[in-house]
Formats: sequence, C-alpha cells, structure tokens
Amino acid sequence: MLYHNCTVITMNSENDIFKNGAFVVEDGQFIDVGKSERIIKSYSGDEKKNLNSKIVIPGLINTHTHVPMVLFRGLADDLPLKEWLENYIWPMENKMIDKDFIKWGSQLAMMEMISTGTTAFADMYFYEEEVARLVKSIGMRASLGEGIIQFETPDANKPEQNIERFKMLTQRWHNDNNIKISMCAHSPYTCNKDLLLKTKLLADKYDSMYHIHLAETKNEKSMIKENESEVSPVMYLNDIGILDENVLAAHAVWTDKEDIDILKENKVSVVHNASSNLKLGSGIAPISKYLDAGINVSVGTDGAASNNTLNMFNEMRLISLLHKGVNLEPTILPSEQVLKMATINGAKSLGWDDKIGSIEENKHADFVVINKDSVNMKPMYNPVSHLIYAANGSEVEKVYVGGELLYENKEFKTINKSEVLENVKKISKKIVGNL
Amino acid sequence: MLYHNCTVITMNSENDIFKNGAFVVEDGQFIDVGKSERIIKSYSGDEKKNLNSKIVIPGLINTHTHVPMVLFRGLADDLPLKEWLENYIWPMENKMIDKDFIKWGSQLAMMEMISTGTTAFADMYFYEEEVARLVKSIGMRASLGEGIIQFETPDANKPEQNIERFKMLTQRWHNDNNIKISMCAHSPYTCNKDLLLKTKLLADKYDSMYHIHLAETKNEKSMIKENESEVSPVMYLNDIGILDENVLAAHAVWTDKEDIDILKENKVSVVHNASSNLKLGSGIAPISKYLDAGINVSVGTDGAASNNTLNMFNEMRLISLLHKGVNLEPTILPSEQVLKMATINGAKSLGWDDKIGSIEENKHADFVVINKDSVNMKPMYNPVSHLIYAANGSEVEKVYVGGELLYENKEFKTINKSEVLENVKKISKKIVGNL
Repeated sequence: MLYHNCTVITMNSENDIFKNGAFVVEDGQFIDVGKSERIIKSYSGDEKKNLNSKIVIPGLINTHTHVPMVLFRGLADDLPLKEWLENYIWPMENKMIDKDFIKWGSQLAMMEMISTGTTAFADMYFYEEEVARLVKSIGMRASLGEGIIQFETPDANKPEQNIERFKMLTQRWHNDNNIKISMCAHSPYTCNKDLLLKTKLLADKYDSMYHIHLAETKNEKSMIKENESEVSPVMYLNDIGILDENVLAAHAVWTDKEDIDILKENKVSVVHNASSNLKLGSGIAPISKYLDAGINVSVGTDGAASNNTLNMFNEMRLISLLHKGVNLEPTILPSEQVLKMATINGAKSLGWDDKIGSIEENKHADFVVINKDSVNMKPMYNPVSHLIYAANGSEVEKVYVGGELLYENKEFKTINKSEVLENVKKISKKIVGNL
Repeated sequence: MLYHNCTVITMNSENDIFKNGAFVVEDGQFIDVGKSERIIKSYSGDEKKNLNSKIVIPGLINTHTHVPMVLFRGLADDLPLKEWLENYIWPMENKMIDKDFIKWGSQLAMMEMISTGTTAFADMYFYEEEVARLVKSIGMRASLGEGIIQFETPDANKPEQNIERFKMLTQRWHNDNNIKISMCAHSPYTCNKDLLLKTKLLADKYDSMYHIHLAETKNEKSMIKENESEVSPVMYLNDIGILDENVLAAHAVWTDKEDIDILKENKVSVVHNASSNLKLGSGIAPISKYLDAGINVSVGTDGAASNNTLNMFNEMRLISLLHKGVNLEPTILPSEQVLKMATINGAKSLGWDDKIGSIEENKHADFVVINKDSVNMKPMYNPVSHLIYAANGSEVEKVYVGGELLYENKEFKTINKSEVLENVKKISKKIVGNL
C-alpha cells in the first residue's frame, strides 16, 4: 500500500520531515519512505491512499502505565499520597481486582490510548496474561509485566507465583511481534534485596527489560533505609548490581548529581511521568539534567488514577512547558526533542527500537494520521510545534499498527466500544458500592 | 426555555451541583435553576430541551489574552524571550498589524475559544474597536482595551491617541451587555510614572477596570529601576497609588511576601497565565500563596503566540497539577477551586460578577453543555474532577451566550469558518514572506 500526499515526520536519526511525503507499507512493515515524487515513481503496486495533506507521525509510545487502573479515574483526587493509597486505591484493588476488572479496564484504556495516537505501551499490573491476550487481539503493541512485590498481590499471588508467571508469560509470548514480557519488580522499597537480585537474574536470563519504580518520592530513601541501605535509591540499586542498559526506571524524581552519573554510566533509561508526579505532589524530575547527561528519557502517563488521562498529547505539552518554566529557560525541551521522547526514545527504553519508534524501512508500520483542520492547528507554520504545543489529541484521525487500521473517524475497528462502556459502568457501580 | 435532564454545576457561592438538574432561560437570562423535579413543576412555558444527562457549566472566562496574536501561533518557539520578541513578534507586529489582521485573527481566536467552552475574555491589543465590533456580532462577551505604551504602537498611535481611543470606546460601548471597555496600560516598565497615573485617573473617572502586566519576569524590577524606582514592581505601583480593587494584574510571577500583602490589602485581582509563563521561561507564579492570602485569582491563556492555544481546559489542568508538584502538596488547588478560578473568579476580576461567572438567577445565560461520552470521561465518579483532570476541551458540545446558541456539534452558528480559515491562510503566507 502506498500512502501519499502527507507530511511525514519520520523521527529517524536525521529527524527527516518530508513535507510532500509518501511511504509504502508491505506485510505490516514500512518498506520505503521519502519524498512523494521518488516514492510514487518507484512504487509498482496497485493500492494507493491519498492522505489529503495530513500529518503522519510514528505511533506514540507510553512507557509507563498501569492500564486497568483507568477504572479508578477520578475516584479520589487532591489527597495526600498515603490517604489516597491506603483509603482508596489499595482497599479497592483488594476488593475489585479480578479478570473481569482487568478485561474491561484494559480495553477502556486501550481505546483512550489508540484514540490519542498511542500504539505501544509498557504496563505493570496484575493478571498481565489477560492484558497480553487483549493487546494481541486488539492489535496494539505492549511490553507487559506482572507487578512483583514482597507481599501478596491483589490477585492473591505471592512473589514466587508472580515470578512463575513471568516465566510462563515469557515462554508464551516468545518472539511475538506485538508483545514483549518485562520483569516488573515494583520498587526498591516494596522488594527486598534478595527479591530484587532474584528478579534481575531471571530478567537477564530471559533477556527481558527490568521495569521498576525508582526515586519517585522524597521519602523513598528513608523507606529503604529502614531495611536495607543508607544510600540513595539509585545508589542502592547500583551497589547491589541491578542497574544496566536493560533497566527502565520510572519517575526518577529525587536524584542528585551522583545519582545522575550512575544512571548515565549504567545506560539506564528514565521514564518521565510528569502529570502523575505533579498530581500526587511527588515533585518534578530533573529531566533537563538527564537530557544534558545523555540519558535516554521517554514519556509515560502512569495510571489514569493519578493523571487522570492516558493522553500522550497532554503529557508532551506539559513536559515541554514545565521544564522551561522550572529552569527559567525557554530554549530547553524544544518540540522536536519532546516528540523524540514520546516516540524513538520510548522504543529505546523498551528495547524495541529495532522495530518501532520511527517511520523507517524495515520497522513495523505503526503510524498516526493527524488532521490539521481544527482551529487550534491554524495557522500552520511548523507541524512539530503544533503537535506539542497546540494539539490536544483530538486531532488524531487514523491509527495504524503493523499496517492494520485500528481507528478511523472516532470509530474503533477492533474494539466493541459500547460493550466495553457497558461493562465499565457496571464495574464502576460496584466500586462506588464498595466505597 | 426549560433545559432539563442534566448535571448543573452552578459555581454559585454554595458550590451547588444539581445532579438531576434543570434551569430556565428567558430574555437571555437564567430565571431559575435547581433540582429537575421542582423546576419542571413550576415551569409554565412550552419550550423544553432535554440535555440527555450531559454536564452544564457556566461559560469559562479567559481573563488575559491578546486574541489577534493567534496568527503568530507556532511561528517561533523555544527561543529566549528577547530573541522571540525582538526578532519575531515585534518586527511582525510592525509589518503585519492592520484592521484585516485584527479582523481575521480575532475571529480565529473566537472560534477556538467558543469551541473549548470560553464565553467571555479580557483582551489587550490594538484596533480594539474592531475586536469589539466582532465580539458583538459573534455574540461573545469581552472586556477590551487598547494596549497603551510609552511609544508608538504598531497601529501608529501615540499614547495620547490610544487614550483618546479609550474614551471613544468607553462612550461607544457604554452600558452594553456584551462589551466592557478596560484601561490597558501595558506595564510598569513600558509606561512611565506620568502615563501610569494619567491612565489610572481616567480609568477611575469612567469606572473602568485597569488591566496591566505586572511582575511577569525576573528582570522587570531592574527595568523599572533604570528609570523610576528601586522597589519591586508591585511596591512601585502601590507607592504611586495605582493599586485598588479595579486593578487586574496579569502574571504576577515575581512577588515576595510584602508584595503579596500589598496585592491583598488593595484587593487587586491576579490573572494566572501558567502556560505562557512556563513556555517563555518566565517562572511559576506563587498561586497557592495568593489563594491562601484570599486574593482573587483568575485564569488567562495569554496570547496564542506564547501558549500556544486559547483552550481553558488545557490551562485548568495545568494549573491544578503544576502547583501541587511545585509545592509537593497534592491537596492544594483541588478541582473545584480551579473551576472557580476559571469562572466566577474570572467574572470578579473583570468587575462582571453581577452578570456572569455562575449559573444563577438574573445572570446572563452563558453556559456550556459538555458531553461525557468520550472514553476519557469514563468511568464517571465526579464530574468536576473530570472537567479539570481528564477533559481536554473536545468534550464541549454546545455553547450558549445570553441564551443564544453559538456552537453545536463542531459548527459555529455566528462565524463563517471557511471564510475565516481562507483569510487566515492568506495572512499566514504574508507573515512567512516577511520572515
């Protein structure tokens, strides 16, 4: 299939933007991309799609979330973290989480992500085998892992059982195009040293990403200190040998210069979850320092219980504005860099940049067609500026993953929206009943 | 007309929310609002509109913007303030600003504002007589003023001429329901002491609001110091007698405890322009301190050259998140308070709270109907939470001002969208030609 008459923002290493661009998709992959004239000339197929001057970007990659938590969206806001967790989130998780919750919550979340241009995400929660099954049937991509903590999880699993699940999932989804399985040790304060080491060894054995919450709140250091170590969370993980290029550190809000050096030296990727960190009063991660140090930084929404959306356009705009203001420096995090963070950097942080994150030959054909007719996109001088500063996600018109159309004109092609919303309503009534 | 079967978020002094609510509009005003059962029983008219369980809020009020600047949206980003102003904005204003620019720019801006639920705004720019004419014909409400600076403005007016325009406009729009004329002395560093005093005296004579940029950047104090005073911008305006309850201070980013006391004592209103302050690297206004002090704080987008949208939903979400994060305190700026800032507080800061800002008897019937069917609004536990944290403005379905329908299902009733977009395109080509 030839797609032509569009502005293609490739996010390749040269940051090529083809203003009168085109690309060819075959067997779910991009096989050519460039200037319209050349592509059309060399294309020998029959199928052509005119994209009517629209903008095309690689699918956005949300590298840290807990998708089923979307069912708690707006249930409790504006509360101290401890009260929010102990009075609302944890009791509700214990009462509510079952396969049904995961099934409908994940689908609601995937509808929100797809409709706002996200094609791949990294999830850490429970019953991830159910999430994986849904991701595959809906046709998104995801890096998924069962959250592992020291104690029993809401699905009544002990750490050993969740480690078994990791093995089972890894074997089940080995070499799949849509699913990667990650090791999700929850954090250095909810896993003891032995569990951290055991999970990391296993992750390495299966060549899996190690996804962990790290240095999210100011008091994480003191929480670890009680049991294990006197040093910072980053230094602690480094001391015990966890950190390397397969580690994806979510949040990394509270780090000092030494921590940043450690993250850099060990090639750890950082996921920035700006909305969630602000909303929970956790703080503001020193993202410009990470970028200066050359650390790979990607973008996550966190769960919609603390965001309260899964819309990467919200996140991109917020990130670009926030760090300029905090640093009193309008030149940092320019729009191109933030779009990189939400695409190719995301792919890198999931160990998936060989196949996703940019519009390039031999990569999966995951792309988003963006309408520039809405009034907030006018006038149009610089499409990347508008994507970051002016768009809100409602401009997403079509979403393709592996060349398959998942969304067009507000309609989902692979999800039964009304069935999902009906079940979401039922579950939310149960949640209210349990308050 | 009876509007029923909706959730009415009134923003009245009791913060009443009628979950099964209704209201009656006659002659452009609300004449009753409350629980559906009572309202329907007492209504004797024929005309009824079923709002199908949707959410109704008062029209949002954007209390600081420069609407025609929307034509510079995305023209130049990620630059130091000085370079942005001196190399892009000022030269372009000098080359481009004429009645045509104002005419089409204002209409593009009004389309964006209406479509995202804003019904009233405060503008400071040039050719405001043209803006006023358009606001009236389109049916929005605005508080408008010609920007007055020490030097010649881009429309080739000297301060004296702009002061004359203020008088002319004030007389022309005296007692109008849609238009208020404000005195817009640009700032304490672009107006000298005499001009500040002269404009304030005149504003008082005509009982007008005095709208001024104040303490926007860190170096404003040193800019004033060169010419006039050694004290802070707030103290300076206080010392010369400018500050009182009719003053609307835009930005107020750089203030200390003494300044805050002065703003409070003089009952000055502050407009918070979070996106613009962040994007230009100006800083973060101490909004939680203003609120603690009991200062009236409202919300502005600033011009779309430095935002880059006029979408108050973006602004509300950002504000609520930002101050929680900066203060490491998730309980501040809860969703109800932020919605107040964008409605009734806005009305207060324009001296218009007798007629707009809430859904109450004898106020103008300016209201917005919000769809809760989009996936980001599901599940629904608390509508105010979703308006602030989950909505992005695309949920706005209908907008009424004075009981007149201005917008429904993405269609503008009083603006010729295609004609505006055609002219916007022409002007943007001229701008590019002048780069």
